[in-house]
Order: sequence, then C-alpha cells, then structure tokens
Amino acid sequence: MEQINIPDSLLADCHHLGHLPTSQVLLNRNAHVPWFILVPDTMLQDVLDLSEEHRERVMSDCAAVSSYIKRVLGFEKVNFAGLGNVVPEMHLHIIGRHAQDPCWPQPVWGNLSDSEPYQPEQLGEMQAGMVKMIGLSPVTL
Amino acid sequence: MEQINIPDSLLADCHHLGHLPTSQVLLNRNAHVPWFILVPDTMLQDVLDLSEEHRERVMSDCAAVSSYIKRVLGFEKVNFAGLGNVVPEMHLHIIGRHAQDPCWPQPVWGNLSDSEPYQPEQLGEMQAGMVKMIGLSPVTL
Repeated sequence: MEQINIPDSLLADCHHLGHLPTSQVLLNRNAHVPWFILVPDTMLQDVLDLSEEHRERVMSDCAAVSSYIKRVLGFEKVNFAGLGNVVPEMHLHIIGRHAQDPCWPQPVWGNLSDSEPYQPEQLGEMQAGMVKMIGLSPVTL
Repeated sequence: MEQINIPDSLLADCHHLGHLPTSQVLLNRNAHVPWFILVPDTMLQDVLDLSEEHRERVMSDCAAVSSYIKRVLGFEKVNFAGLGNVVPEMHLHIIGRHAQDPCWPQPVWGNLSDSEPYQPEQLGEMQAGMVKMIGLSPVTL
C-alpha cells in the first residue's frame, strides 16, 4: 500500500505503527485504554459510503485489530466507531475496553483524562505483536 | 427474518420501525438528531466478532440506513458506532449529524439534552420512506 497522508491532527495525538492492506494503523497516545485508529486510503469521509467491496476489505482490517486487542491484549470488549465530526478524513476507532478502565461505561471521546505516555518498549512490543499476529507492515517508531 | 428479542432498555428509549434482512430497526426517541439503532440477530456482542459473511450482510443493512439518512433526510454526515458498554447485546448506531445540531461536534452519547418527542405523522413518514427506499419490513408503530 502506498503511503497516504495521515491528517496532522491525528498524527499529533497518535503513534504511527504501520499499515495493513487498506489502512494506516495509529495508536492514540492516551494509554488508559488500547485505542487504535485506522486511516483507510480513501477520499470519502464516512465508512458506510465506501463501495461494498472496499468496505469489506476495510472492515477485515478492523476485525484483525480487534482480534489482536482481544487475543493478545486480553480484552473482552471492543468499541468500534467512525465519527469524523472533528477530523473529517475517514478514520476508524477500535478500542479495547473493560469495566475497570478510567471512563467505563462511557465512550472514550471527551471522557478520558490524560495518561502517562507509552514507554518505547511497550510500543515496540505492541508493534511486533501486530506484525506477527495480523501481518502489520511496520514503520519506524 | 424471525422476530428477535430486542433488549428492553433499547425498546424503552426507541421506536421500533421494522426490520431489514439482518437486523431490527429502531429510532431513538431523542429527535434532536435522526438516531437509528440496528439490532442484528446474533448472540455475539461486538460487530467485529461476526463472521466475515455475516458482518458483510449486517454492514450492508447499516449502509442502507445511512443512505436513507443522506439521500432522503438530507444529511451530509453520518456517525457509525458499535459500543455496547451499557447494553451488551449487539446494537449499531447510525446517526445523521450536521454542524448546527445540539451537540456538534461531540458524539451524541451523554451530550444530547432531552427533545420534544417525534409526532406520529413524522414516524409514519419516516417508516414509509424506509419501506420505499431500502425495503424495510414495517411493524405497527
């Protein structure tokens, strides 16, 4: 997949881990919850506007990230959303949740306090796990 | 599609409009924004856990509702989410948004004040539009 432009506002808030067949893979810097953001390679803004064929491929990448969150990170619950009211370029949230996280049961948007940053080792481990389990093509952290 | 059990807490907050091939179709009683909720016929809780084939059929119904919101109701933006932190049974939010709505650009959850109820004529018109445009099988309102 060719490099696409990731919106600056997302890059400012996230670590760029790599890409899957349809999407760049970001991790929100807020480490209270594992909050992945996929940026599909499209000019459309809403996921439900994608063609059926493109939507299926994007959703398959989203399901792979969800599977990583559940099987490797051990979460039972994943929140999934495409909003884009603030950053219009299409980006999809895939977030591991549990009943003891800091904003349960509220959605994360607007309800999470600042967190300690991820440590470089944590990011490297997460990236390596996604390379191994779901075929992430990594970028330099 | 056989009748499925819609969680009581969703029924209390929503009008039941009918069903599409994979899902019951609800409309949140809060009329500030057109807030549809699809309840797929599954025991799974997270949309990204569905089999690929089932997920595609569910997403196709979601896309139909989004298309109704955009083409008939005239919205340019649709928010899409599967959360389920409060009501665990799978239900998917499909919400028409615009920059003048009461909680823009925040997500709707926890950010919408009470609204006047929908009028029976409005509900009937909406249901009829969905029957005509996206093949909704209606139930008695």
